[in-house]
Amino acid sequence: MNDRIIQDIAAEAGSSVIPMRWEKGCFYLLDQRLLPAEEKWIKYTRARDVAGAITDMVVRGAPAIGITAAFGMVLAAREASGLEGREFLEHWDREAAYMVKARPTAVNLKWAVQRLSRVAAVAVQTGVTGREVAEVLEAEAMAIWEDDIRGNIEMGRLGAGLIPESAGVLTHCNAGALATGGYGTALGVIRGAVTAGKNIKIYAEETRPWFQGSRLTAWELIRDKMEVTILVDNAAGLMMKLGKINAVVVGSDRIAANGDVANKIGTYQVAVLARRHNIPFIVAAPVSTIDPDMPSGDAIEIEKRAGDEIVSVCGTRIAAKGVKTENLVFDVTPAELVTAIVTEKGVLEPPYGPSVRKLFS
Amino acid sequence: MNDRIIQDIAAEAGSSVIPMRWEKGCFYLLDQRLLPAEEKWIKYTRARDVAGAITDMVVRGAPAIGITAAFGMVLAAREASGLEGREFLEHWDREAAYMVKARPTAVNLKWAVQRLSRVAAVAVQTGVTGREVAEVLEAEAMAIWEDDIRGNIEMGRLGAGLIPESAGVLTHCNAGALATGGYGTALGVIRGAVTAGKNIKIYAEETRPWFQGSRLTAWELIRDKMEVTILVDNAAGLMMKLGKINAVVVGSDRIAANGDVANKIGTYQVAVLARRHNIPFIVAAPVSTIDPDMPSGDAIEIEKRAGDEIVSVCGTRIAAKGVKTENLVFDVTPAELVTAIVTEKGVLEPPYGPSVRKLFS
Repeated sequence: MNDRIIQDIAAEAGSSVIPMRWEKGCFYLLDQRLLPAEEKWIKYTRARDVAGAITDMVVRGAPAIGITAAFGMVLAAREASGLEGREFLEHWDREAAYMVKARPTAVNLKWAVQRLSRVAAVAVQTGVTGREVAEVLEAEAMAIWEDDIRGNIEMGRLGAGLIPESAGVLTHCNAGALATGGYGTALGVIRGAVTAGKNIKIYAEETRPWFQGSRLTAWELIRDKMEVTILVDNAAGLMMKLGKINAVVVGSDRIAANGDVANKIGTYQVAVLARRHNIPFIVAAPVSTIDPDMPSGDAIEIEKRAGDEIVSVCGTRIAAKGVKTENLVFDVTPAELVTAIVTEKGVLEPPYGPSVRKLFS
Repeated sequence: MNDRIIQDIAAEAGSSVIPMRWEKGCFYLLDQRLLPAEEKWIKYTRARDVAGAITDMVVRGAPAIGITAAFGMVLAAREASGLEGREFLEHWDREAAYMVKARPTAVNLKWAVQRLSRVAAVAVQTGVTGREVAEVLEAEAMAIWEDDIRGNIEMGRLGAGLIPESAGVLTHCNAGALATGGYGTALGVIRGAVTAGKNIKIYAEETRPWFQGSRLTAWELIRDKMEVTILVDNAAGLMMKLGKINAVVVGSDRIAANGDVANKIGTYQVAVLARRHNIPFIVAAPVSTIDPDMPSGDAIEIEKRAGDEIVSVCGTRIAAKGVKTENLVFDVTPAELVTAIVTEKGVLEPPYGPSVRKLFS
């Protein structure tokens, strides 16, 4: 089994970037820490190394983390291909527990591991060998991946309807092909609007501290021959005030049952600015990003990363020694600021409590 | 004449950082482009080199630019010390026209040059030599400098009254000693609050694209043994939502007659966030920053700088080749979002139209 079908789906949709590969039982990640300077692929054969890659941000973006974790768990199953029954499951549970801790905020990680765990449990119960369980899981991981990219393309089609015919559209962080199994969520909506013939000028916030906008969003759009203008995160307010930005589209790492949206730090303030300027603030995310067990965004764990992401840039120390830092890397946008949530199953509108319940019923 | 008096005033106020020096007819600037890695002083003996230093941001910050321009014009007068009367004034006018074009947004530049031009015109009319005019101008430039630092200390005293007894205080960019003749405007208010015994936790936004917060604000506060926490610009909203930031204090490059405030890009969005969280948004600036001839902020020229400030950091290219950029480096915060304007002549409160008129009457 390989990833040929994903490549074909992406190509047909006009998107050439896919951040992972699956080939002959090995998983590969494009090292996103090195983009755009270098395109280096790293090969993985062990689950724990995949978990490490998620922690270290070789791959990032909630849906991409989910797919990566799924293939990481396929590798975990392959490690245990000589085991059966309870022994297999003991290994599996240990690796699954390790994997879900790789990063805390994106719910897709937990979601993907749980989905594979259910399949593994059923397969083990049938009494097949570990090797055969691993094959079933490989097919399930491929299904997650294929669902993801097809879902993104569908989100693009649905979300395009929310974008004005002629507009400056701002996005934050990277919720593109690189953050997913291909095509992208927020960038999927932008791609969808372009495909629908809309006159879109794309603005990307550079997205400190990790520069996902400059490094990743710009790279993948240029790769796909789309024009993009980079702004510092400080410029969104002015650009809205000048009338140059007319819509905002972002992705999400977790959406609570009430519609509160966790996403990259800075998203909340863009939403506040969008509201002040009466600009639609659109969230694009697969249903797997919605956490129906999380009543509101207040309880979503916000990852805190090391301060050197702030005080050192490209290996150069920029702040005086002795400064303190606060490096919370996500924030929560309250549902009241969200104009619409685009999923592959349809566009959710406020009030989100009922629309989320309906989606899951 | 030298700058000993300024050093003494700063030291007495507990501030050790002054970004310029005047010694034996030469002007010196601390090269702020190299901070915090290196403390290098550059010597200036010609007016045009001083104008170049302003354009190239060896020095920045509206009041510091004003003082620098004043000493630059003293150097212009010294260049013409062999000239008299009309010949002197022809040289003067040419150099003044060159100087005021060094940067467009900060009004203090124009204000300082005009103030010296009036003194030069009067002195020339008395029939004294160019050399004597230069001496009069040197005294006037020193007076601008002394007024500035004394004004900052007074702003600190007045502004401290607006800061809660115990508060997280956010500042944007650098409106500190490095941006002024010493002590600072916004940082002056923070220094004043600390001096008044308030329990202040200082947060500094890193302030992309030039990192004035990380590079300059952090450096001068640590130099003066004050604790500072650096945030990416994206984090202000979250930190307010978490209740960790309870007041905002910023400087200004130009304040219109209606109270609209031009300041470093990103200031406007912090003001929008402060309003949403019912947090005071305080502007600290000397009266020389108020432009009574500018009816509103709409007409203030917003400087646009080269895009490589965005796509390259510390010499490393971070964005893919082919991206476009939009690098407007100031924005305008409408008066309605400004809680108070602290000047050395008193605290202005809304409505600012009448309070500004009263100040200038």
